[in-house]
Amino acid sequence: MRNAKRRYAVLAPGQFANNAKTAHGVIRYGEDEIAAVVDPECAGKTVREVLPYLQSDAPIVASVREALSYDPTSLLIGTAPKGGKLPPDWRAEVLTAIRARLEIVSGLHDMLDEDPEFVRAAQEHGATIWDVRRPPEVPLFTGEAYAVSPPVVLAVGNDCAVGKMTVMLELARAAKDAGKHAEFVPTGQTGIMIAGWGIAIDRVIADFATGATEQIVLEAARRNPDYILVEGQGGINHPAYAPVTLSLMYGAAPDELVLVVDPARVRIEVFETPTLSYRELIRMYEGLCGTVKPAKVVGIALNTRALTEERAVAEIERARAETMLPADDVVRFGPHALWNAIAPELVKRTPLSAEVTPA
Amino acid sequence: MRNAKRRYAVLAPGQFANNAKTAHGVIRYGEDEIAAVVDPECAGKTVREVLPYLQSDAPIVASVREALSYDPTSLLIGTAPKGGKLPPDWRAEVLTAIRARLEIVSGLHDMLDEDPEFVRAAQEHGATIWDVRRPPEVPLFTGEAYAVSPPVVLAVGNDCAVGKMTVMLELARAAKDAGKHAEFVPTGQTGIMIAGWGIAIDRVIADFATGATEQIVLEAARRNPDYILVEGQGGINHPAYAPVTLSLMYGAAPDELVLVVDPARVRIEVFETPTLSYRELIRMYEGLCGTVKPAKVVGIALNTRALTEERAVAEIERARAETMLPADDVVRFGPHALWNAIAPELVKRTPLSAEVTPA
Repeated sequence: MRNAKRRYAVLAPGQFANNAKTAHGVIRYGEDEIAAVVDPECAGKTVREVLPYLQSDAPIVASVREALSYDPTSLLIGTAPKGGKLPPDWRAEVLTAIRARLEIVSGLHDMLDEDPEFVRAAQEHGATIWDVRRPPEVPLFTGEAYAVSPPVVLAVGNDCAVGKMTVMLELARAAKDAGKHAEFVPTGQTGIMIAGWGIAIDRVIADFATGATEQIVLEAARRNPDYILVEGQGGINHPAYAPVTLSLMYGAAPDELVLVVDPARVRIEVFETPTLSYRELIRMYEGLCGTVKPAKVVGIALNTRALTEERAVAEIERARAETMLPADDVVRFGPHALWNAIAPELVKRTPLSAEVTPA
Repeated sequence: MRNAKRRYAVLAPGQFANNAKTAHGVIRYGEDEIAAVVDPECAGKTVREVLPYLQSDAPIVASVREALSYDPTSLLIGTAPKGGKLPPDWRAEVLTAIRARLEIVSGLHDMLDEDPEFVRAAQEHGATIWDVRRPPEVPLFTGEAYAVSPPVVLAVGNDCAVGKMTVMLELARAAKDAGKHAEFVPTGQTGIMIAGWGIAIDRVIADFATGATEQIVLEAARRNPDYILVEGQGGINHPAYAPVTLSLMYGAAPDELVLVVDPARVRIEVFETPTLSYRELIRMYEGLCGTVKPAKVVGIALNTRALTEERAVAEIERARAETMLPADDVVRFGPHALWNAIAPELVKRTPLSAEVTPA
């Protein structure tokens, strides 16, 4: 499933401090080593000096050329911009890496291994390109996911980029610490880079997006885990990405949902659309799942990074009071309390079935 | 937008009488001529003798070779099987058509113009291939659809293949008869073949499916119609295809919905999943739209083909009583009554907008 360990140069020029979700996820949760980060705006510092929570002392340098002196094996494209295109001024840096025979690892929608200039350079220098988001051929959704044995838990949220992947990785860690095997199912490019497998569901042809989700849940089930924790995507009232969210809700056939909320979000991403309240979110997510296979929200994972500790605690209390469910910030306060609260609630459910009188 | 008129040989071996939705739609609503239908099981009859409602006297023959004597310009692949693959035993017939220099028109997921054998034969004989389902490159959803002037109406349903395209084509016809210009927006392969433009949303990469829908609504708006009628797809509790349905609901940003229901459906397509009641359907469709841009169900279009006339009338009455909305079967009883009932209800709505206090 996973090759020998990589040692990454992480490309995120001008973006590392604020906007490089992919880079941050791989540095924090990946098993690969970080040789250096490339971002002229932060050059001279370490990762820890810019973002302490990433807990890495890798150096930040100004160019791929400089990064080469830290012996990377691979160049990680460290962002996932809207629409997934490579920023044009990054091309030269990617070419420098290819000419140094680095493996290129990219989660962009744009397939770098279809770019004639990159392909030519890679052939000439013997470099390889891994387009993480390239989906395999998958069947349509079959319903086989309904027969999976362990409870399947899906992360859903009040918007995209609120921490659904992080919450599931933290809960998987808490399960492990509790002596249980929870299998994390990656559904997006950063999750795939971290876990070394998975399918970027947003890159699958719409008709097959539920089928692709089902296939990775079946793959996780073959490893005989106690729990299956599926990374979430988007949000159910996200004007652009909600269909990807629904693909996970029906394709993964979850038994339970963990609701991930950034309480500071008032609008959905770049849109005017208001985010939904806890109760509205629970009604929408449970309501939709309830038309196919019931699933309950078992807990709330809050992302309180933007809040003071006092306000964070108050917000967690408010979530508990409004929903009568366990709630916590698993990054700020650790995942164990929330995991211990929700694990006993994780049960196996059966899909709805029409009673049909034979004609 | 549309080339010179085609004259189709329609390929549907063993399927024409029952299972060739694409062929039936193009014969009934398309502007192109039908030279002949190829289906050995019905050979010797006319289309009208097999399916009177298609109102065509085109002959049915046993092979493409026989169809050539009726001077077709194009071969239409007349079915859209699950998963969209070409049945292997149809290959020889397609090759015969290519060698006779017919244009090949296909709505399959499998792209025929990427099939090495077909491409080689087409080059050798000077034939062309139109893969109707090949999506263009589109941007992500932007919200521009919110500014479209005429009311946008979307067909939604209780399952896939219940007649959503047919209902919108019939309502467009009724609008025309009433002196209004209603622009039909094709979102699937058969609609595209009929109207000569559009995007097969189920073939678009999931992240871009809302954006693709928005683009074709904007395209329709540029023709300055009085109404925009968007073809529907799938169903909101279809375990496999609901994400495509949601792509239309958010991407088209409809003001109003027409609910298309086959009351004989108890289960969703091949699944055990029960179909929803009128009230549940209205709650789900209006509930989801209501989280982004409100839209109301303005009428119910029933597909009563499987019922006697007496039972059809009773079922229409039941729909009216349960929903308090205009209801009719627009194929069986004509579209004018339903159109006249719902047209005055079609208003323009505005999307939700979060009130944000500047920080």
